[in-house]
Amino acid sequence: MRIATFAHEGQRRVGLVSADARSVTPFDLSPAEAQRGALALVEAQAEGRALPSTRGEPIALSAVRLEAPIPRPRRNLWCVGRNYHEHAKELQGSVFKNNNANPAQWPIVFTKVPECVVGPTDAVTLPGEAISSQIDYEAELAVVIGTGGKNIAKADAMKHVWGYTAVNDVTARDVQMRHQQWDMGKSFDTFCPMGPWIVTADELDGQHTRVRCWVNGEQRQDGRTEDLIFDIPTLIETVSRGITLYPGDLIATGTPAGVGMGLNPPQFLKAGDVVRVEIDGIGFIENRFA
Amino acid sequence: MRIATFAHEGQRRVGLVSADARSVTPFDLSPAEAQRGALALVEAQAEGRALPSTRGEPIALSAVRLEAPIPRPRRNLWCVGRNYHEHAKELQGSVFKNNNANPAQWPIVFTKVPECVVGPTDAVTLPGEAISSQIDYEAELAVVIGTGGKNIAKADAMKHVWGYTAVNDVTARDVQMRHQQWDMGKSFDTFCPMGPWIVTADELDGQHTRVRCWVNGEQRQDGRTEDLIFDIPTLIETVSRGITLYPGDLIATGTPAGVGMGLNPPQFLKAGDVVRVEIDGIGFIENRFA
Repeated sequence: MRIATFAHEGQRRVGLVSADARSVTPFDLSPAEAQRGALALVEAQAEGRALPSTRGEPIALSAVRLEAPIPRPRRNLWCVGRNYHEHAKELQGSVFKNNNANPAQWPIVFTKVPECVVGPTDAVTLPGEAISSQIDYEAELAVVIGTGGKNIAKADAMKHVWGYTAVNDVTARDVQMRHQQWDMGKSFDTFCPMGPWIVTADELDGQHTRVRCWVNGEQRQDGRTEDLIFDIPTLIETVSRGITLYPGDLIATGTPAGVGMGLNPPQFLKAGDVVRVEIDGIGFIENRFA
Repeated sequence: MRIATFAHEGQRRVGLVSADARSVTPFDLSPAEAQRGALALVEAQAEGRALPSTRGEPIALSAVRLEAPIPRPRRNLWCVGRNYHEHAKELQGSVFKNNNANPAQWPIVFTKVPECVVGPTDAVTLPGEAISSQIDYEAELAVVIGTGGKNIAKADAMKHVWGYTAVNDVTARDVQMRHQQWDMGKSFDTFCPMGPWIVTADELDGQHTRVRCWVNGEQRQDGRTEDLIFDIPTLIETVSRGITLYPGDLIATGTPAGVGMGLNPPQFLKAGDVVRVEIDGIGFIENRFA
């Protein structure tokens, strides 16, 4: 299934996207449930309830505005840094330069605030030069947790995956580095475009897909999730050690090589730039920076 | 005012603590509102609504179970690292050893998940030796944001403070260090005891108070918030740069010298230990580790 959250006739709805991706049929949810987006479905299934049925006629996707599938996650998103070898190399002189730990041993996990999530075609707001002059993109596959749990073993981890979506882990590099801890430089308002929908785990093998990014039509990133340093089961095992994961938790799995900071010279985003993140089997999000 | 969240006769209530701290009178809130604890009041005031009136007879504090004043924050708590000079020194060989930034220039800001919050007398669960053998305490003053905002200037920052509470920023040192980013090592289930209540900003000057900690009756920490490297207005200005703060956001302001990791040799917490965090003008929380 592809589950989309969207606005139609002034209301937020959650719906099932058709096989040809030309229409969406709403689920029978109360307005309060629909307000939570796909999270309402994730939680229903995690609690052992059946998905609500769809109701009414399909609506043309061209007649709706897609929103982030989970418009406001229940807590900060989990994000993984330095999780593709080539990306680790390209930033070894900057973001990862104080990294004395063995990169093969422990993932770097930080967070983004839930309120920085925006939809797949929403504008991203540059915070202004006084706050940051180094805004960068990071195309990433995000895992949506279904059934929660603590101390989840790697062998069981994939049973906890409800689906996948695409995110752009937008980052203020200067802020990220100067505060050492990254949460602030990753959490500026609008800094997490997400979508275009969630593809459920039965329809996509997140461990074998392709993650790409274009800036103004120029390809910058092209990676495959087979090249993750820490694969999805390892990430779920790691984050859930001592920490309960909840239905709807999001884990952004890291970005491939090709970020603006890694170019020589570095190239950061400016007003008018359009960044497209595309994941095979999911689709793309495309956001203008303003 | 001292605003407490508590359980009484199987229900969560929010109430006004009496001047002698012997009783609490509930506010007139619906059960759904009371479920959110003091957050319901913070949001009401931030939206310009009057506080609800109290209703009924005072209840003896001895007859209730105090809960965290904000039992589940709306998103991860903001926390500040290395914010007292003496504490920065004691950890310069361990937690802060890769810190090349000028400590006088930029605060270190990380987060704790909302679900790790527990009440002022609740047990803290040690995650087990296989997950961490270096559990440590950090006594901290936490600021409760009232009116939200973005890009809040230092000069206006104190107007955004609704009140203060005490937290123990419990930390798994080994996990904190090996992942480089601290969120995971700070976010284990039950790792944020909070309370015993919120003292509103008109009754406490958070910039001039004393933060102390005892382990099994032995005093370990004794600091004053005048000695913060980054004071409260600076922290609010910093975190709100590009990031909207919301009513009920919590900012834990950092811990004074004397953590277990800084002792020679380091001393970590073990089952049966009782940690008391006390802040002048607020009161104390006391949690057994099990």
